[in-house]
Amino acid sequence: MTKAKITSWRALFGRAGATAGASQLPTPLLANSSANPRAATNMTATHVTAPTQFIEASGVRFAYRRFGKDSGAPLVLMQHFRGTMDNWDPAITDGFAKDRPVILFNNAGVSSTSGETPETINAMGEHAADFVRALGLSQADVLGFSLGGMVAQAFAMRNPHLVRRLILVGTGPRGGEPTQDPGVAQHSRGNSTQEDFLYLFFAPSAASQSAGRAFWERRHSRKQDVDPACSAQTMKAQLAAYADWLQVRDERFAELRSITQPTLVVNGNRDVMIPTINSFNLSQHIPNSQLIIYPDSGHASHFQYPDLFLSHARIFLD
Amino acid sequence: MTKAKITSWRALFGRAGATAGASQLPTPLLANSSANPRAATNMTATHVTAPTQFIEASGVRFAYRRFGKDSGAPLVLMQHFRGTMDNWDPAITDGFAKDRPVILFNNAGVSSTSGETPETINAMGEHAADFVRALGLSQADVLGFSLGGMVAQAFAMRNPHLVRRLILVGTGPRGGEPTQDPGVAQHSRGNSTQEDFLYLFFAPSAASQSAGRAFWERRHSRKQDVDPACSAQTMKAQLAAYADWLQVRDERFAELRSITQPTLVVNGNRDVMIPTINSFNLSQHIPNSQLIIYPDSGHASHFQYPDLFLSHARIFLD
Repeated sequence: MTKAKITSWRALFGRAGATAGASQLPTPLLANSSANPRAATNMTATHVTAPTQFIEASGVRFAYRRFGKDSGAPLVLMQHFRGTMDNWDPAITDGFAKDRPVILFNNAGVSSTSGETPETINAMGEHAADFVRALGLSQADVLGFSLGGMVAQAFAMRNPHLVRRLILVGTGPRGGEPTQDPGVAQHSRGNSTQEDFLYLFFAPSAASQSAGRAFWERRHSRKQDVDPACSAQTMKAQLAAYADWLQVRDERFAELRSITQPTLVVNGNRDVMIPTINSFNLSQHIPNSQLIIYPDSGHASHFQYPDLFLSHARIFLD
Repeated sequence: MTKAKITSWRALFGRAGATAGASQLPTPLLANSSANPRAATNMTATHVTAPTQFIEASGVRFAYRRFGKDSGAPLVLMQHFRGTMDNWDPAITDGFAKDRPVILFNNAGVSSTSGETPETINAMGEHAADFVRALGLSQADVLGFSLGGMVAQAFAMRNPHLVRRLILVGTGPRGGEPTQDPGVAQHSRGNSTQEDFLYLFFAPSAASQSAGRAFWERRHSRKQDVDPACSAQTMKAQLAAYADWLQVRDERFAELRSITQPTLVVNGNRDVMIPTINSFNLSQHIPNSQLIIYPDSGHASHFQYPDLFLSHARIFLD
């Protein structure tokens, strides 16, 4: 990366560690970059090298990382229970970054982001909207995984103008079907080990477990500037938000009709945490939604089949 | 098309209208064609121009059409209730033909094929296997639609060595969920009009109905050498076979575990004939299966989104 490029990048998004208000940010990223030589800069940062940056909105100092191509609709990723920016798969984020800006962030109270984690999905969605607006984005594509997929739904329902397309992975609607697997509670207690993770996120087959270990290696390839673990407050609040999300409100699934964006719903065929039928139900009730279920896989099917998932997601997004 | 090409093509598969035993056929089509200049012939026939040919197997004279690239795993298509070779979408068949041989046929008793249509799906599957073996194919990819998807399942379960990959569109497992839509019986009576077809195969939305009319135009683009309509015997036998297929035998869905081939299951999110939940159930019980459900579409989602379906099917097949 040349110094000029770094300078341009910092000019766009502020120095790592600095806080910046939305008013200091440039024109919306969806603008055609060919008319703006600065925005057309080739960004060479990757999942591993992109520095953690900060931006303040509504009293929260949001940690985020941005990398990838500097034109096209940015893709904002929303993470699972207890997850941070470091829990994404570099094979997927760097894959997306080849043809669009990729933005990872920690929501309010999570890891390197300041504030308290709220106890409802809707409040998490509002924090996410604060963050997206602070970046000066007029519209973004959103990929939400698990709890992040619930936040993405709330975000899209309450801020439809901010969302171009939506990808919901390993997640469920409000009032969805809870897990029936007694092993989930057992593997969710305390500090998460690799064994717990492989149980919760992958299928029991040798192939799926092996793919899980390969992902585990990939996700630990970032060694510097990594996120601290989530606090007890975050974990407790996220659990409360999920418990609340499982409650049916009004007519079951009716609110999904208000998600009018093209939506891609993805899951493995054996999700022990958020049963796969929830993905089917999402696709039955979000009007313009496409469903893809992968074989012999669990909650993190996109981490098991990163290349296939990328192929499908790109067809959907482009 | 040059005369030499026509001659070579005829040498491979026999003159249109002639009958040929399997023993007269060349080496399996899966063989690397580069070692066989004759098999490497560029075939320029299309869905509209491919002549109807005939081949005899086990006392049935099967009508079929073959076009497309002359190397790679051939794709054999199995058609829906009352459908003939003319009921496929040229946008799909010609799309597949760009990179593989495409083989349409009428099963026993159907339209231009001789014999009686049997009254069970298994017997239909056996006839299909006779046809595939008669062509000298050592293995094929199979795309079955609706009733043809049931035949494809029976074919794969009883002749696993003949099937490389399986695509099941708008179909269901044995013992599946029957239609709950009272309009289906009403629109299935007597001669099928365009209105009936649009009700049964597409969703009620303006976009889906419009896509249905566009398909209707495409599917009528073949004007010469077209198939006669199915006989009353075929329709009666196919209905009996479908009624039998709806009956649960032994442990429900257990037989699907014996389909070990990679399988792609596809449907629209509003299939009024074979409810979409059947596709979900197929994907839950066929071990190596991927499910794709398209938005705002019905039984013939692949005819509604031919380009998207082709993209997904090619990723799956290749």
